[in-house]
Amino acid sequence: MIEVPFQDQYLEARADCWGCGRNNSDGLYIKSSWDGEEAVASYTPQANQSGHKGVVNGGVIATLIDCHSIGLAMAHAHKIEKRKIGSEPLITYVTASLKVNYLKPTPLNGQALELRAHILRSEGKKTTVACSLFANGLETAQGEVLGIRIEEVPG
Amino acid sequence: MIEVPFQDQYLEARADCWGCGRNNSDGLYIKSSWDGEEAVASYTPQANQSGHKGVVNGGVIATLIDCHSIGLAMAHAHKIEKRKIGSEPLITYVTASLKVNYLKPTPLNGQALELRAHILRSEGKKTTVACSLFANGLETAQGEVLGIRIEEVPG
Repeated sequence: MIEVPFQDQYLEARADCWGCGRNNSDGLYIKSSWDGEEAVASYTPQANQSGHKGVVNGGVIATLIDCHSIGLAMAHAHKIEKRKIGSEPLITYVTASLKVNYLKPTPLNGQALELRAHILRSEGKKTTVACSLFANGLETAQGEVLGIRIEEVPG
Repeated sequence: MIEVPFQDQYLEARADCWGCGRNNSDGLYIKSSWDGEEAVASYTPQANQSGHKGVVNGGVIATLIDCHSIGLAMAHAHKIEKRKIGSEPLITYVTASLKVNYLKPTPLNGQALELRAHILRSEGKKTTVACSLFANGLETAQGEVLGIRIEEVPG
């Protein structure tokens, strides 16, 4: 069975996101899915998404880490409640805080980057996710995202 | 005298950045300048730069904070050395870490956002910048960026 990425299961209310929404007119279209207890995603930066020459932009990296981590927080909440992502009433998370440590330059060379995230803590409405970015197997950035579950009316 | 934004004074080696480079083919073109001891910038998000519907994307906010803060770190280093930005040898900074606290939703409504940043600490090669984002005078996000001065050959 081919797993549908988390973001492609989001309700329409969440599908406009520049980072990961399938309905955005010109976004990054980040697609995350389960790999055991982790969430994984692959993203190939575009040629103009540079910081220094030849290096992926730090803001683009922050966006990848943010959307991938919030995707995991949402998927995890659905899993705990034994519900399908996208079922109503909508379970949704927003980012309360984001930290990124840029360990090494992330090469911008047409190669895909890999994101791997796992849940650090989940208590009540707060879920904290750790996320690493890899370029050709080398970890180049580490992020931590605090997601807050909110009430939202679909539409 | 009209002040030229920091980023428009960067050497070509720094002018490709997706967040703030004047030579990027389709970037955000963040432009920062002095206001006393602070650095200020104004940015109007595009309609597709959304997170939730009607709210500015968190990754775009992280990018604004990153480039504006590093711009201040670079401008500050030039000021201390009584040098013009863009003079050689190149003084350049890279982002070592980025933190963003999202205090409130930042409305995506065609209105300009304001960034204000100041130096928190500057010791040796490390400069830490605090940066706030305002929408219609309301502070919606707070960031902290650690920039590291690096040696770089222009080109």
